[in-house]
Amino acid sequence: MDINAYWENRATRRSFTQQPVTDELLNDLFLKASHAPTTGNMQLYSVIVSRDEEMRRRLTPTHFNQPASLSAPVLLTFCADYRRFSLWCRQRKAEPGYDNFQSFIAALLDTALLAQQFNTVAELAGLGCVYLGTTTYNAGEIAGILELPELVVPVTTLAVGYPNTPGEPSDRILPEGFLHRETYHDYTPADIDRIHEYKESLPSSRQFIEENGKETLAQVFTDVRYTKANNEYFSKVYLDVIRRQGFNI
Amino acid sequence: MDINAYWENRATRRSFTQQPVTDELLNDLFLKASHAPTTGNMQLYSVIVSRDEEMRRRLTPTHFNQPASLSAPVLLTFCADYRRFSLWCRQRKAEPGYDNFQSFIAALLDTALLAQQFNTVAELAGLGCVYLGTTTYNAGEIAGILELPELVVPVTTLAVGYPNTPGEPSDRILPEGFLHRETYHDYTPADIDRIHEYKESLPSSRQFIEENGKETLAQVFTDVRYTKANNEYFSKVYLDVIRRQGFNI
Repeated sequence: MDINAYWENRATRRSFTQQPVTDELLNDLFLKASHAPTTGNMQLYSVIVSRDEEMRRRLTPTHFNQPASLSAPVLLTFCADYRRFSLWCRQRKAEPGYDNFQSFIAALLDTALLAQQFNTVAELAGLGCVYLGTTTYNAGEIAGILELPELVVPVTTLAVGYPNTPGEPSDRILPEGFLHRETYHDYTPADIDRIHEYKESLPSSRQFIEENGKETLAQVFTDVRYTKANNEYFSKVYLDVIRRQGFNI
Repeated sequence: MDINAYWENRATRRSFTQQPVTDELLNDLFLKASHAPTTGNMQLYSVIVSRDEEMRRRLTPTHFNQPASLSAPVLLTFCADYRRFSLWCRQRKAEPGYDNFQSFIAALLDTALLAQQFNTVAELAGLGCVYLGTTTYNAGEIAGILELPELVVPVTTLAVGYPNTPGEPSDRILPEGFLHRETYHDYTPADIDRIHEYKESLPSSRQFIEENGKETLAQVFTDVRYTKANNEYFSKVYLDVIRRQGFNI
């Protein structure tokens, strides 16, 4: 794909053919993606590759049965991993001190940067990808299924395969909506209206409101998609998982 | 730059010419980067652009006076931001419930994905970038200088400019060192040796050990660069900042 045309036309893909994604291709894509920046060159991540149908079937409920999680030939669970580095330290007469919040955040950022670099190289190679944000909701079950040891925590999942439908790029707010010069310039009501005007004008947004029986698009988010009750429940769950995996928060 | 040659040859740049990075260029790069995947298309981030010399001078100590933080003509502080979205909700008869840990993590991941997409488009446009990981250490001072309101938390900073020296790609462990098939396969001592053998054999690693008066490369990390005491201190600091900015953890 032409690189200049790629950026603004990339699209999340949620439906895949059964054409396999070979180990050779995955290895080549990860070789490229692994050159993403990383904290102190520590590469604080691991990726669990799920191809086996039984394993993908077990993971699917943890992603609330999203069709992509079963139809994709490969699921990649990106995990923050301070274990490998800590094992290396102990094997080299060094005492690791990485079971804390700051280290978890460093590993989480490393993991996110790797995932996004992979997403880009994979899409440019003709693959389709979708992030499964459910990973932080059901991280405990995922950690169990994937047999994650201490200091390894699921962060996000990419469902990957060859797309079987054309991609539709998503609308985005313009850079002027999220860039601030020198200091944060708080949003006036008029700013908020202007920034969201285009998104709210889309037929898909109107359809979304109607299907959910709501008055505004924002209510679809607060009352249906990302509710306060769910967010609070899953906050406790994810904190518990991070602690159970050995990070003291 | 040829895209295929780019991935494995990209290099972090820490030294810059004084050639300005124009607003037009920044806007174009962020337009491209903004198509990075984002949770529910909420774009939970803001970026503070620091060009003013006085502002960069004030930020420099928060990055422990790293030369890049002052020599780069532009600093970009990437912030997790649930404020803009929450303001929109309130303005649309919807009650946001995003002052919790799960929402903070979602915003942090959105922010990291945007930063990495920006890093890639900027490097491909001939700019050099370096992440300043110090952002999570001194996030409180940074939030003060940049006047960040509630639900906005600094996550990472990119120092950006035109590089004035050639880049040297960093070594990385190979994908086989961080990929796991179906379940996490814990590392044997032999695995740990093999994975780190190349890095440990580099002249720069030996020099690093000698300069720091240590016995092993791992000790440079545990005793000098990322110590347990510092990690624990800055864990408390970052948690406090996240809470002060309004997220209940």
